[in-house]
Order: sequence, then C-alpha cells, then structure tokens
Amino acid sequence: MIRSTPKLQLIQGGGVFRPEIKILDCSIRDGGLINKWKFSDEFVKATYTALCDAGVEYMEMGYKASKSLFDPKQFGMWRFCDDEDIKRFLDDVEPKCRLSCMVDIGRVEEKDIAVRSQSPFSMIRVACYMKDVDKAIVLSDMILSKGYESTVNIMAVSTNTQREIEEGLNDLSKSTVPIVYVVDSYGAMYCEDITALVKQYQAALPGKTIGIHTHNNRQLAFGNTIQAIIDGANMLDASVYGIGRGPGNCCLELLLSFLQNPSYHLRPILQVIQNHYLPLREKIEWGYIIPYMITGMLNEHPRIAIAHRDTADKDDFTKFYDTLTTPEPEDAIRVKE
Amino acid sequence: MIRSTPKLQLIQGGGVFRPEIKILDCSIRDGGLINKWKFSDEFVKATYTALCDAGVEYMEMGYKASKSLFDPKQFGMWRFCDDEDIKRFLDDVEPKCRLSCMVDIGRVEEKDIAVRSQSPFSMIRVACYMKDVDKAIVLSDMILSKGYESTVNIMAVSTNTQREIEEGLNDLSKSTVPIVYVVDSYGAMYCEDITALVKQYQAALPGKTIGIHTHNNRQLAFGNTIQAIIDGANMLDASVYGIGRGPGNCCLELLLSFLQNPSYHLRPILQVIQNHYLPLREKIEWGYIIPYMITGMLNEHPRIAIAHRDTADKDDFTKFYDTLTTPEPEDAIRVKE
Repeated sequence: MIRSTPKLQLIQGGGVFRPEIKILDCSIRDGGLINKWKFSDEFVKATYTALCDAGVEYMEMGYKASKSLFDPKQFGMWRFCDDEDIKRFLDDVEPKCRLSCMVDIGRVEEKDIAVRSQSPFSMIRVACYMKDVDKAIVLSDMILSKGYESTVNIMAVSTNTQREIEEGLNDLSKSTVPIVYVVDSYGAMYCEDITALVKQYQAALPGKTIGIHTHNNRQLAFGNTIQAIIDGANMLDASVYGIGRGPGNCCLELLLSFLQNPSYHLRPILQVIQNHYLPLREKIEWGYIIPYMITGMLNEHPRIAIAHRDTADKDDFTKFYDTLTTPEPEDAIRVKE
Repeated sequence: MIRSTPKLQLIQGGGVFRPEIKILDCSIRDGGLINKWKFSDEFVKATYTALCDAGVEYMEMGYKASKSLFDPKQFGMWRFCDDEDIKRFLDDVEPKCRLSCMVDIGRVEEKDIAVRSQSPFSMIRVACYMKDVDKAIVLSDMILSKGYESTVNIMAVSTNTQREIEEGLNDLSKSTVPIVYVVDSYGAMYCEDITALVKQYQAALPGKTIGIHTHNNRQLAFGNTIQAIIDGANMLDASVYGIGRGPGNCCLELLLSFLQNPSYHLRPILQVIQNHYLPLREKIEWGYIIPYMITGMLNEHPRIAIAHRDTADKDDFTKFYDTLTTPEPEDAIRVKE
C-alpha cells in the first residue's frame, strides 16, 4: 500500500521495515496489573518462548520492587523480579531475548539492583510522572552505571501542561537517559496528539530514542503506535493479545503484522494466544470495555472504571457515565490524580 | 488536545466539530450479515430510538432486495426493506431520523423502488465493486430521479489497481452521484492508505462529498475514520458497539466521543449497548477475532474466516494462518474475489 514518510522502506502489502525499530513486549508486566502477577510458570514460559521465536527484542517480565514494600504472599513473583527467582525460572540458561523489568520511583531500593553481570536482566525501565522526572533521571543514572540499558517512561502526559512537558524534557535533555517514552496512560490521545508529542520529544531530546506506549481504551492503541512509528518512534511497546490493565495495550500480533522486518514472525504469537491467552481471557478481563472507553474519552485514570467493573452494576454504563459527567456539587470530593 | 487541520474547529478535550459532517449508522444493515437480519422488532426499535436521541443523521435499516431473489422465510424483514413493512414497523409515524437502505447491483429491480413520497426512506445507497461503477451510476441515477438521496459505495478498493480506481472515479466524476464512499471492505488499510484514497477521491470528484466506511479487523476502524475526517471525509459510517459482519465496523460510541458536535449525544448509545447489544453479543459474535485480523492483514475477503469460525477448529489460529500463507501447489484452487 502507500507510505508517505521517506524514512520508511516500502514493502509489498503495506507495513514498515526500519532497522532501528525494536519491540518490547510488556504482557507479563502490564498484564500482571490485572491478576497481581499471579501467572502460572507455564504461562510465562510459553510467553517467553513465543516472544523469542517471534524475534521480539525485549520481554518485560514484571516490576522490580522491594519485598520489604510489598507482601510476597499477596503477589506473584513478577511483582518483584528478584534476580535469583528469574534465574531459577530460566534454569540458569542465558535468555534468548533481552529481559526487561520496570521500576517505579520510590518502590525500589539501590540494594535491589545488582550489577548487570549478576542479573538476568538487560534493561531496567523507570516509570514516573512528569513531576518526578528529576528523580527518574537519578534512578536511571544509577541503573545505567550498573551496566543496564535504561529508559524513562513518563506516564499520563495527556494530563500535563505544555510548560510541565517542556521543563521535564529540558531536564531529560541534559541527562544520559538514552530512551524516553511517550506514554498514553489513559488511552486519551488521538493520532494528532501522538504526532505532536513525538515531534516535541524528538526536538527536545536530540540523539535520544523515542518510545511509544499506548492504551487501548478507544481502540486506538495500534493506530496510535503506527502514527508514532511514522513520526519516528523506534521503541515500541506491545503485549500479546493486548493483555494489560483495563483496556490493555497495543496488540503485539497487530504490530508484527505491520512491521515487515524479516526477523519478526507472527505465527508463534498466534499460537500462544490460542493456547494460553484465549483461556486466560475467560478468567480475567481486558480489552474494549465501555467504562474504559469512557475514562479514555474523559482523560481519566482507569482506576474508577476498574472499581466499577468490580461491582454488581459493572454493565450499567449509563450510571457510570452519569457519575463521571454530572457536575459535582461544591462539597463533593472525587478521587482524581 | 491538538488539531492540525485548519478546517477543524478545536473543542476543549479533543475531538472535532465540522458542521458538514453527517453520521450514518449501519448497525442493522451490516449487523444483519451475521444473523440473516433476524433481529427482534424490540431490538430494532431500541436502536432506532437511541439513534434518534443521539442525533445521528441517518439510520440504515437494511438492504432493499427483491423478494423474488431471496426467500422471505430465510431472512428477516431488514433483508428486503419493503416500504410497507417499514411503515408498519414505524406505526406510520414520520421517522425522526432519516432512514436509509442499501441496494446491491443486480439484487433489486426498479419496481422495488417507489417514488420518494411513497417511501419511508430518504436515502438509498448503492454498493458495488469498482468494475461495476457504471452500473452503480445508472442505478443511483434512477434512485435520485425518484427523489431520494443516494450514494455509491465502492467496495474492496484495497484490491484495485491505480488504473481501475482512476477509471472508476472518472466515470463517477461525470455522474450526478453526490456522495462517493471509500470502503475498506477487508479491514486492510492503514491511515496512509486512507489519506491517499480520500485525497484521490476528492481530487477526482470536485464538489462531491466523500464518505468513509471502515472495518475493524485490525482495530483500525475508528483510527482510520478519524484519519478520513482529518482528510476531509464528511459522511461517516459507524455501528452501535461496532456490530457488523466478522470484525464489525467503526464503533458509533467512539465516533460520537470524538465528534464534539453539540447536537450529538453519547448517552442513548451507551444505554442501547447495555440493554440490547451486550446481550446480543453473547449470542452472535463480532469484533476483534484473530482469523479476521489475519484476513485483514492479507487483504482478503472475510468469508474464509467466517467459514473457519463455523468449524470445530475455530480457535485454531495457526492452522488458519498456515492455510492462508502456505504457498499453494499449482493445481490448488482457492476461492478468492
């Protein structure tokens, strides 16, 4: 089909090949937000094997967090991504695709992060809000100094003012952080928002790689990821069958069908979907679900929709809509971040 | 958020207001392809009421077809859209939104189309393949001469060569047909394909309105409709909760959340989804289903996926993928249109 951007190499049948593009699968990390990371070993192994066979460059296995901050009885091991646990999981075999984990500001201590040579992880990504970019830079610096690759993923940028974005990017431009993500945490952005942000990040961060992480509240995760690719983003987050909190993420199988890099293979992902993700989807929910569409439309955190889905009224969409759109009396308090 | 096209009027919170834009809901017409148009009267009435309350300009109630060509025992009344049946359905009340029906080349006779004053329909749309544009123009001329609005919807344009497209548009440019649709029948197009086609249609058809009809095989129906709006399309097809054959269409609720026209109202659509479309979705399937994603990726008619979904192997995605992607021996015959 038709490609308009000169950087993209045309391939018959549409799609894009650009050697700089890398995919990071966040199925276990983001999917774990639904089930407290209580995936069976078999499920994670099947995902790992499929991603390796598909040629996906990075697999994000979970969050790295202090066991002193979260109760290991309450969460699966992917909540902690303890190096020794992961090595046991991999049977001490060198991983076939690069492993990543994510850290949140304030939820990990330096002692939790070994030097790279003693860890199965290649990359540790730092998630933060724009107001904490300075803290994220310090954390990312520490991670880089220990030999890992690192990124900073600035969440919920759809809620930031232009001045906040400019200041955060200015701080990042002076840092050693090599990869910075545009993150549509609330699934609120349109293609033109993606274009504006990717171009702004690029202009402010010369020499750095721009990443894209989308949410599928309004069925725009894949389309917006394509838009980011056209605009020059080269680190692409996706998840198998779109698994992820609430509406989920950009579907990895869709992304692979678009990126015509001959080292990518779609079939292993289709196989793990039919064998593992379809059955899991019967037990836990993610995808296009109206309350998440409504929070996306309103540029709100999905937590209010998650709470609503846990009530007997979960399919009472008009009630949910009315709650969020009816003007509040002066004395009402609504939790909003 | 951010809008780049000067024709669009910015509204706080994103979205678009352009007075020329009209929405046509095709829930019953396209959804009927799943269940042979066997909707209950209650279901169609609820849809009709919701669309009127939502401010949607057109409701497409089905296909108009000769009862001599299709057995009325096999199909619901929306397969035929007989004027008298529809009048009875509406209790002879003047419809509150404009009603449309679709005709296929060769499946309707002139005697089936009364003069406008005797019909509940305001618009009759003509669906055709590019090779039949000449026949579609003749049929559309007849429809216009009887006092209706009319459109020509050229299906499966993703399979046409540039020369075929140019010739078809050249014929249409000399016709009185006021509205011509870009139709992504196979759900195969990316945003850049949409842009190229909308711009080509506009350039070839000065003074005519361009319409857009997308399919959601790859979760791009809404994103591609937004792209078409940005590029200037002003007739937008959508369906409630995306109902439609296979993957379905652009979701009307998403489109309404994007178009900030104050005469549109989202709430009635959310209500009809929770009361009628969610329960129906438990009985018949449409939406993001992997075999349709595969036909979209391969730019194939969904019929092979529909047939596969009717077998015991319906969730054997790799088998379906292998069947479609394994090179065929010289003597193999695969049905392909």
